[in-house]
Amino acid sequence: MSKNNKILLIGILLITIIIGIGFIPAMHQEGHDPETETSQEIQTIYDSLKYEKSIHVLAMLLLGFGFLMVFIRKHGFSSVTATFLVVSISLPLYMLIKTYTGDEFSITNIDSFILAEFAAASLLIAIGAPLGRLKMDQYILLAILFIPAYILNEWIILESGMFTGFVDVGGSVVIHAFGAYFGLGVVANTMSKFENQPECENNSLSNQFCIVGSMVLWIFWPSFTSALVAPGEVVITAINTIFALCGATLATYVFTRLMRGKIEIEDIANAALAGGVAIGSVCNTTTPGYAILIGVVAGAVSTIGYTVIAPKVEKLIRGTDTCGVHNLHGMPGVIGGIFGIFISGAAGIQIGGIVVTVVIAFVFGKITGIIVRLLGQKEIPYSDEDEFITSH
Amino acid sequence: MSKNNKILLIGILLITIIIGIGFIPAMHQEGHDPETETSQEIQTIYDSLKYEKSIHVLAMLLLGFGFLMVFIRKHGFSSVTATFLVVSISLPLYMLIKTYTGDEFSITNIDSFILAEFAAASLLIAIGAPLGRLKMDQYILLAILFIPAYILNEWIILESGMFTGFVDVGGSVVIHAFGAYFGLGVVANTMSKFENQPECENNSLSNQFCIVGSMVLWIFWPSFTSALVAPGEVVITAINTIFALCGATLATYVFTRLMRGKIEIEDIANAALAGGVAIGSVCNTTTPGYAILIGVVAGAVSTIGYTVIAPKVEKLIRGTDTCGVHNLHGMPGVIGGIFGIFISGAAGIQIGGIVVTVVIAFVFGKITGIIVRLLGQKEIPYSDEDEFITSH
Amino acid sequence: MSKNNKILLIGILLITIIIGIGFIPAMHQEGHDPETETSQEIQTIYDSLKYEKSIHVLAMLLLGFGFLMVFIRKHGFSSVTATFLVVSISLPLYMLIKTYTGDEFSITNIDSFILAEFAAASLLIAIGAPLGRLKMDQYILLAILFIPAYILNEWIILESGMFTGFVDVGGSVVIHAFGAYFGLGVVANTMSKFENQPECENNSLSNQFCIVGSMVLWIFWPSFTSALVAPGEVVITAINTIFALCGATLATYVFTRLMRGKIEIEDIANAALAGGVAIGSVCNTTTPGYAILIGVVAGAVSTIGYTVIAPKVEKLIRGTDTCGVHNLHGMPGVIGGIFGIFISGAAGIQIGGIVVTVVIAFVFGKITGIIVRLLGQKEIPYSDEDEFITSH
Repeated sequence: MSKNNKILLIGILLITIIIGIGFIPAMHQEGHDPETETSQEIQTIYDSLKYEKSIHVLAMLLLGFGFLMVFIRKHGFSSVTATFLVVSISLPLYMLIKTYTGDEFSITNIDSFILAEFAAASLLIAIGAPLGRLKMDQYILLAILFIPAYILNEWIILESGMFTGFVDVGGSVVIHAFGAYFGLGVVANTMSKFENQPECENNSLSNQFCIVGSMVLWIFWPSFTSALVAPGEVVITAINTIFALCGATLATYVFTRLMRGKIEIEDIANAALAGGVAIGSVCNTTTPGYAILIGVVAGAVSTIGYTVIAPKVEKLIRGTDTCGVHNLHGMPGVIGGIFGIFISGAAGIQIGGIVVTVVIAFVFGKITGIIVRLLGQKEIPYSDEDEFITSH
Repeated sequence: MSKNNKILLIGILLITIIIGIGFIPAMHQEGHDPETETSQEIQTIYDSLKYEKSIHVLAMLLLGFGFLMVFIRKHGFSSVTATFLVVSISLPLYMLIKTYTGDEFSITNIDSFILAEFAAASLLIAIGAPLGRLKMDQYILLAILFIPAYILNEWIILESGMFTGFVDVGGSVVIHAFGAYFGLGVVANTMSKFENQPECENNSLSNQFCIVGSMVLWIFWPSFTSALVAPGEVVITAINTIFALCGATLATYVFTRLMRGKIEIEDIANAALAGGVAIGSVCNTTTPGYAILIGVVAGAVSTIGYTVIAPKVEKLIRGTDTCGVHNLHGMPGVIGGIFGIFISGAAGIQIGGIVVTVVIAFVFGKITGIIVRLLGQKEIPYSDEDEFITSH
Repeated sequence: MSKNNKILLIGILLITIIIGIGFIPAMHQEGHDPETETSQEIQTIYDSLKYEKSIHVLAMLLLGFGFLMVFIRKHGFSSVTATFLVVSISLPLYMLIKTYTGDEFSITNIDSFILAEFAAASLLIAIGAPLGRLKMDQYILLAILFIPAYILNEWIILESGMFTGFVDVGGSVVIHAFGAYFGLGVVANTMSKFENQPECENNSLSNQFCIVGSMVLWIFWPSFTSALVAPGEVVITAINTIFALCGATLATYVFTRLMRGKIEIEDIANAALAGGVAIGSVCNTTTPGYAILIGVVAGAVSTIGYTVIAPKVEKLIRGTDTCGVHNLHGMPGVIGGIFGIFISGAAGIQIGGIVVTVVIAFVFGKITGIIVRLLGQKEIPYSDEDEFITSH
């Protein structure tokens, strides 16, 4: 191993230790939200119920996103290890920064942890675009640069007061679209010899793992959207989310066959989830019937994205979107944001918030891409052999 | 793609949209059960706790049944896609029909959603019999025909008053036996050249996925049986269910070796679950010791089913039961129903309910099989190549 | 099948039935802890919340430990079947023995079931050491011998009053270290021709299953540590646990590369979990910053264990530790116990408890190993072909 590599590794270890030490003086910030009128006992129960959902979201982060990204041939170990690493760095990093910058942020509050998970989800979406083009140290660096940008956008849209009335409880815009356009920013202008983009190798067993990831996301998506809604809204939010997923799954099946003649398992694994992305903005305010229809639109658009739009986008930004995050999270996220207009009635604020999010995401993604490539750039996609011991 | 195919696909899209639109006028039916005396806050908490179980059941539907059915060689994509599709069509369809026919059914109630999941579980059991003999459009059509029949039987047994006192809280009869005998009805009289029935290919990795599905079902089965019991009965129901699964798992191990000399992994993956099927009827009223004994009986009968009884049943109905649903859900479901006599003491009602369920399931399954085959029938089992893009 | 084999199998069936019958007279012991002052309704809700965690722990037992052990080439069916069997025998056996020996133990109490799951977890850790050296009947016999030893140690350390003040709420010592040193006891002095120890075959898909197991353990670990803490401590316990896992994951990445030059996926799958092991003793009393630092230490020690210490330990005990349970559960468990000194301040009691646990575990493991080998010993590792039907 080169000396540079060793320095990098020791740097990562030091950053981890510094994050740990950084939390120690912050502990006095403890304490629950004083405004609540429910008794301590009921509050404890509500927190425990949110805890259950936070574990569901954790399953989405690791098993869900992790295995949805193993479809690339000979890149399975890299995908799951990258997932482990970016989750492990981003959860505490988000909470550390917010502890020192957020007014009412307590590191021992379950809401804070769920917000950190949302940031990690957005980050995992972002790395889907350059997946296979980066080595492990670069994923970690990308994570460290992503989190402050995500917190900035979260503050501008949801906390600064600039976009009061912006509707996005399940994160269609600030989580999904932000992650997708950040990822597109990272890969923009990197097109070189990557013509033979690794495709979903659907004749091998590795695609079965991709389906495991997809199903884990589908199953726990209702906990993602309902994690931070009021206790009385959990059930309706969950049913709306499931109905949107049902609509998207059926539309994906219809459109994958109409567009391609046969079924592409990659479409089923991905576009079926677009309903969950799009319902995010209105998940607690719409009704099941509309939820199905939103899901149908999202599934159809996403499938058309994978079949028709993706090549054009890749040409436009001059970069390869390995996991098709623009199709699954970008467009459906924006669609979800637009559906929010029907709820809030405030088209200007809703569209403004979407545009600002997309711009911030893409610009910071672009800058991050330039910095990350200082650690090296490879002409052909990475395979597990590059960084893993694969011969015993 | 043929014109007929396109019409079918657009038909499926329209049905999805119609289901969505169908819900819209129904929203005024909202509101919780007014009879409850618990406060609104406690009711909200109970609903959230049921929501957790509904997600566990969702995991059983997709990851559990989906991957338990991937054991057929070169049929993995078809199995998981069929699972996705029939779940996505049956959940909203069940809730839509019940909204317009059920007296106290509210689409925003968590109990309603769990009942819809039970219907989807029964449907997934049913498609286990013809698995590998149908194409995707046929699975969807089967789902659309299954749900009304399931609702009819559910009404006759549990709501009409004809079988007052029938004991089946965990669905041994109305979910498991109904699904199994419906599936057997679908395949009855289809035996032609299917002599070389695809077997569990247990020398390949695909069987490991089968075990993942089996374990997901085992783990979350306590949430299936306890999803709709009274809050105070959740723990005893869960412990009874787990003890029944333990008894069945150990009995399956003993009987697979006694009957075959060696261990058949297919038996372990399937018959170990028979305890969960059989305990359903008495899961909240028996005690852990009896639960183990019920599990031992169910595991033994199921294993004997796979080794000895299955070929005779297939000859009798002149059809192939691909997943052996008769062994896992049919016989153990009926056994569970019979155990219910010890609880209710009303042998006549219990046996009557079982017989009516089996007859309705088989007859409607038979009719459904005839209708489904109007869309085409293949002489040899389907493989993924028939409907999926498998070469890149 | 030989006559001896049949007698063994029928013996296992009889033991199962006896366990079932053994519970029947015990049912009068029912009833909740009378000391609680919370109302019945709130108590029911707390129990339901604990039930959710017990299902998470069940997922760790089957999917987690089961698939973490499938990395051995051609031993996948054996690993998962052994997991199914030892879980199925140990859960009811633990509860049966405790019902007749424990003062306040009720078989219908959720706490009792979670304690049984902890025993099963410790047992699964123990069989990781001899994995691949035993046949199915031997795993079952090992389970039957393990449980009384585990209960004895649990009583001495936590209930007898000999070690009042011993800090170990998440089981670093009594669950993890006990299981690991019991397993090392089983394999001690068995070294013969096992020079070609089966290695993690990380160029095959079977390792992806290993990662699934690892992720399931990572995701649900917070429910393991928080399962029995006071309701108000659930959130802080969970956040501490996750932060410890984050620290261990990052440290594992750094140390696997520093020690080996490249990344060993086996290290990532295992050592990343060492943070969860080590945090156990102080999971509800420390703060997130210290939790990260404990995780870093545990991950680093565990990775160094896999790379440097393991060969020396195997030479010392003259036996092969197939899964490296000493690296993942033994050393991190002891480290966790030592961290407990900073909380309790009682170094003597803490160190005394650790030493007693290690000695009891190793001695009873040694005795168990001798008894288990009476059923036969094989010179080369087992493969699935020995006991499973693998050709169709």
